[in-house]
Amino acid sequence: MGKQDLVVGLIGYGYWGPNLLRTYVESHGARVKWVCDRDPQRQARAKTRYPSVTVTDDCNDLFRDHEVDAVLIATPISTHYHLARRALEHGKHVFVEKPLAASVAEAETLALLAEARDRILMVGHTFEYSPPVVKIKELLDAGELGEIYFIASSRVNLGLHQQDVSVIWDLAPHDFSILFYWLGEEPTRISSFGRSCVHRSTPDVAFVNLAFPSGAVAEVQLSWLSPVKLRRTMIVGDRKMLLYDDTESVEKVKLFDHGVNPIEPNSYGEFQLSYRTGDIVSPRLETYEPLAKEARHFLDCVHDGTRPKSDGRSGLRVVRALEWAERSLKRNGETISEPDAAARWGNVHEIPVVRPQSIALR
Amino acid sequence: MGKQDLVVGLIGYGYWGPNLLRTYVESHGARVKWVCDRDPQRQARAKTRYPSVTVTDDCNDLFRDHEVDAVLIATPISTHYHLARRALEHGKHVFVEKPLAASVAEAETLALLAEARDRILMVGHTFEYSPPVVKIKELLDAGELGEIYFIASSRVNLGLHQQDVSVIWDLAPHDFSILFYWLGEEPTRISSFGRSCVHRSTPDVAFVNLAFPSGAVAEVQLSWLSPVKLRRTMIVGDRKMLLYDDTESVEKVKLFDHGVNPIEPNSYGEFQLSYRTGDIVSPRLETYEPLAKEARHFLDCVHDGTRPKSDGRSGLRVVRALEWAERSLKRNGETISEPDAAARWGNVHEIPVVRPQSIALR
Amino acid sequence: MGKQDLVVGLIGYGYWGPNLLRTYVESHGARVKWVCDRDPQRQARAKTRYPSVTVTDDCNDLFRDHEVDAVLIATPISTHYHLARRALEHGKHVFVEKPLAASVAEAETLALLAEARDRILMVGHTFEYSPPVVKIKELLDAGELGEIYFIASSRVNLGLHQQDVSVIWDLAPHDFSILFYWLGEEPTRISSFGRSCVHRSTPDVAFVNLAFPSGAVAEVQLSWLSPVKLRRTMIVGDRKMLLYDDTESVEKVKLFDHGVNPIEPNSYGEFQLSYRTGDIVSPRLETYEPLAKEARHFLDCVHDGTRPKSDGRSGLRVVRALEWAERSLKRNGETISEPDAAARWGNVHEIPVVRPQSIALR
Amino acid sequence: MGKQDLVVGLIGYGYWGPNLLRTYVESHGARVKWVCDRDPQRQARAKTRYPSVTVTDDCNDLFRDHEVDAVLIATPISTHYHLARRALEHGKHVFVEKPLAASVAEAETLALLAEARDRILMVGHTFEYSPPVVKIKELLDAGELGEIYFIASSRVNLGLHQQDVSVIWDLAPHDFSILFYWLGEEPTRISSFGRSCVHRSTPDVAFVNLAFPSGAVAEVQLSWLSPVKLRRTMIVGDRKMLLYDDTESVEKVKLFDHGVNPIEPNSYGEFQLSYRTGDIVSPRLETYEPLAKEARHFLDCVHDGTRPKSDGRSGLRVVRALEWAERSLKRNGETISEPDAAARWGNVHEIPVVRPQSIALR
Repeated sequence: MGKQDLVVGLIGYGYWGPNLLRTYVESHGARVKWVCDRDPQRQARAKTRYPSVTVTDDCNDLFRDHEVDAVLIATPISTHYHLARRALEHGKHVFVEKPLAASVAEAETLALLAEARDRILMVGHTFEYSPPVVKIKELLDAGELGEIYFIASSRVNLGLHQQDVSVIWDLAPHDFSILFYWLGEEPTRISSFGRSCVHRSTPDVAFVNLAFPSGAVAEVQLSWLSPVKLRRTMIVGDRKMLLYDDTESVEKVKLFDHGVNPIEPNSYGEFQLSYRTGDIVSPRLETYEPLAKEARHFLDCVHDGTRPKSDGRSGLRVVRALEWAERSLKRNGETISEPDAAARWGNVHEIPVVRPQSIALR
Repeated sequence: MGKQDLVVGLIGYGYWGPNLLRTYVESHGARVKWVCDRDPQRQARAKTRYPSVTVTDDCNDLFRDHEVDAVLIATPISTHYHLARRALEHGKHVFVEKPLAASVAEAETLALLAEARDRILMVGHTFEYSPPVVKIKELLDAGELGEIYFIASSRVNLGLHQQDVSVIWDLAPHDFSILFYWLGEEPTRISSFGRSCVHRSTPDVAFVNLAFPSGAVAEVQLSWLSPVKLRRTMIVGDRKMLLYDDTESVEKVKLFDHGVNPIEPNSYGEFQLSYRTGDIVSPRLETYEPLAKEARHFLDCVHDGTRPKSDGRSGLRVVRALEWAERSLKRNGETISEPDAAARWGNVHEIPVVRPQSIALR
Repeated sequence: MGKQDLVVGLIGYGYWGPNLLRTYVESHGARVKWVCDRDPQRQARAKTRYPSVTVTDDCNDLFRDHEVDAVLIATPISTHYHLARRALEHGKHVFVEKPLAASVAEAETLALLAEARDRILMVGHTFEYSPPVVKIKELLDAGELGEIYFIASSRVNLGLHQQDVSVIWDLAPHDFSILFYWLGEEPTRISSFGRSCVHRSTPDVAFVNLAFPSGAVAEVQLSWLSPVKLRRTMIVGDRKMLLYDDTESVEKVKLFDHGVNPIEPNSYGEFQLSYRTGDIVSPRLETYEPLAKEARHFLDCVHDGTRPKSDGRSGLRVVRALEWAERSLKRNGETISEPDAAARWGNVHEIPVVRPQSIALR
Repeated sequence: MGKQDLVVGLIGYGYWGPNLLRTYVESHGARVKWVCDRDPQRQARAKTRYPSVTVTDDCNDLFRDHEVDAVLIATPISTHYHLARRALEHGKHVFVEKPLAASVAEAETLALLAEARDRILMVGHTFEYSPPVVKIKELLDAGELGEIYFIASSRVNLGLHQQDVSVIWDLAPHDFSILFYWLGEEPTRISSFGRSCVHRSTPDVAFVNLAFPSGAVAEVQLSWLSPVKLRRTMIVGDRKMLLYDDTESVEKVKLFDHGVNPIEPNSYGEFQLSYRTGDIVSPRLETYEPLAKEARHFLDCVHDGTRPKSDGRSGLRVVRALEWAERSLKRNGETISEPDAAARWGNVHEIPVVRPQSIALR
């Protein structure tokens, strides 16, 4: 650890926090000074594993510590907003687990606040830092698949039912952040269909449809109930097609040189197509750990003052899609369509900034 | 061939007709007398392969032949109604390839007409005669899966784009007939989402959502564009779960003794669940050919005067769902919901029968 | 059928004969005149399906018919020699199902006889005409895999126990013909290990090891007893590696850009290796039917007087390996090694030709 | 940690040692007092992770410490014998990583010494403590598969070439210990076939054949060179068959109700078989960690004075098979057969015990 090490504090040492702690402890250029959690057992666990860390149950200890450069938040979704806001107001850089916040209003405020205060705000859209997702982004940007016709994604398994949120808020942040990252756009229409199977008031299976400005459409299957675990995405473009299966240990990404080509109409003006099935290539993937890459990116952004790939706006886009999908589900699949919603955020500087000073705490 | 052999005529010797011809030629108790097709090359092909069959380009030859007991129809969907109607009016039993007809109105008339004339009308919902689908029906009826929460089905591959119909009319008849057969009910709400990718006016990818009176919901993925071929259905019940993969050569059906059980709330009234992952069983399946089984069933029904499993009403149910799904697609995913539609057909005898005499031909 | 159609007669209409009949009937440039089988039911079946063919139970009918150019033999292995020999002596070109004959002595005589009489003798090593095996041969010849280290092949399933031959004589002809075709050499050492499980005197599981002059080694697993069907071959070269799985419907061949590279020894002279795992490519395969390709090749060779890919010598090489493998099995795995055996056949013209006249029939 | 905690010392903190350290630190009833390794970096790593442990580079520190009950050895194979012997002579209980020693002579001495000194000697045949292997043992013991015909096992991947040992000594200990545990017997005949591909003097691919007194045979494929990772074992019995694939995350074990049944010979005395393909069941497996189970077993045996499942004799059996397999490989596949070898060890008490006092150190 050198003199310029960034000093970091972690809030939340439950399900995910230990992964963040381990990752930041092992990252070059960072020193984890604080771990905050209300649960004494969790505090003890953190202390035993990393004796050099100071534990506390009061997050103000982190906020007030002038040595602390950045705060990592891995608490329940409902608390993200208040914790992140206070951290930003105390001048800290902030990393929040996905989703950024529990509503569009909250997410907007956080994104604006970070920009107004010139602090880094980054959301833990970890898949955007994983080798297969990054490789696919490269293939898409290089035009390998051509224009994207549609994307179909399945994220299902016999999973941990959440008490406070639906399967959409729990699992869709992964797919939404991946989709928006790949396509470089956000949806203008969303509808969803599903059911609360085990608990009457908690949707645990949902099928979400999204339409994008480019014409691309997507369908996302989400479920906590499934005999098998699926982490599979199919991308169909007008040049090539791709399959991404995150449960595979080796061939996670396969690029198919398959397609359909319209043939010049014959004399009868008939519909003619030719099908092409060519080579299938599974490109070599990098082998780094996504979490380490994500932490590296956050630390670099804080250090250099650059904007993170998964910044506040990215977090907001995901939260907006979550909110729409959830609303559609409650309205029996009604399509939620606000073509202006996305546009509104075109340039943050045109929006009357909510002055952070005027945001009352508590 | 004995004296009591049923005499059969086939109309349509294009893509599917040759399969029917081979199957009925090899069925005991049937004699194929006629093959009708307008294309001289197809006629020649039928004649070469089965010299004992008489070929013609005029279907009236079949209708007027008093020796003909039953007519098999394997022509484009748009012609099903007229051909089947005329065959019924000439007193023939009728087997029609799926879907039964091109509209609910047509399908209703055919179903009513067959009942009024006391003729067998059977639709080629072949999967209802396939070993895995029948085995799953047995498991469902025995209560092995308990109450059905949801069913998710994928039928996608790089496929034959149809010129005159959407991917829904082409592929969904399989899934709809299977779903209604398994659940013993028809949907009261349908919505669909999709896109016309290759041809502007022909939907080639669609995601169809269905809600059933029992509470079960289903989602069907359909596409002519896909890097891989999927024929996969997941059924989740409150007791067990099941996976049916028709592309597997051996373990097509797998029954998972997996589930989620609510635990009595603790003192804090908290949400508590226990997950169960038990044995996985792939039951032995019969090895008969579905087409032969279907033909056998039709011949037996004609012979015995019994109602086929996939009768006119079954065909109508599928056509109604197709019509709704297509309508929803055209209306940007609007939910089509006619709770009475299904009920109306509760008992055909309560419906004022449209007298077949009064149905004008053409 | 034109004037120059080659006239063909088939002997043996049991398990495999019908496939040959169908294939040759559908081949351009051939006319099947005769089908010979002793079983009246089989004769009837052939006649019903192909009324233009003449059936007989006497193979002399074919041999004596001057119109007959070529004879196809699909009878039990033990009869191959006598039938093929007589056909050759009557001046017919001959196609024999694999393996060519029941012993090296028989196979040698047939190969010599065909060469002496200047007749085409071809063995039905069908895999040598299948798209994946041909594609792999191209990759090997292009040096894609580099020097071949080893090949491991599995051909097991719950299979048809043969009454008269071991699992080696039944299944190994496939693997041996493929291996020798790929490597362009035949083994100088063979050993095998196995067991007669179901019947005391019929080996039904065997593991055969082969060593080739180039240094390549191979291992072939053969079994009529297996819970699953495997048709899988792994090829490891010093540049790349390959997997060929014939049970896959799509990605039958996968080329792995994987390898191990020795690194220059460090100062301690230590063993240093670098592992490379690169792209995995599943090349597009042709889609023709192997049987049709094989028939086409035979007809072309007969027409043009060219030597078939799987000629008599190729058949002999396979029979020799079968004989060695079987001998090793009987001698508890003793290695059979006759380095000169292969060499002996270097040039047929140096061998004193056994005059066909002097070979007494029966 | 209570008063009766067993005190443990670990020798070797290289590739595997850290796993043992973590496991024993987390085991109830044990206290790890010492970690011994000559490498200062490794010492530092152990100290950082577990500050309560004392590190040393002198194993005598452990041997002389009267508080130490048991010594864990995770060093290179060539050092196992000397370290284990000295530990036993100092009255320690000993756990050694597999294989027990580098030769039969060494293994015999260790096994005898432990028995003579009444100390626990256990070998780290970890798979014997893994849920799928234990489940299969239960199925075999319950007679589910009937008499075992044969077992075929593949353990191949693009792997870590070892500098000092062949692929047999590196990988076969897994398969041999599993096979002998399942079958309850050791082989009387072994032969092997293979090649040194990358380094002239280090075999890196081998096919090992084993024959057992019961009649069962086995074949083990081992390779450090392979495009894919295989960890697959097929067991064929006369009642049922089984597939064990350790690379599967869920269905690691599948039991096939498949088989072949001889039918009473008909009047012609012909060979008649009936094939049975029934249900396929993937039984639920326990989810414990094999390493933790193994550590638990060692600690319990030390505490209770009971004989471990993988005791010195078990270790000896594996070493003997390794020695034979290696010898066969060097002799070009010659079968190594010493029917008495196994018998000799029938009862240790009949063997003149080599008095530990008389075994000179160094």
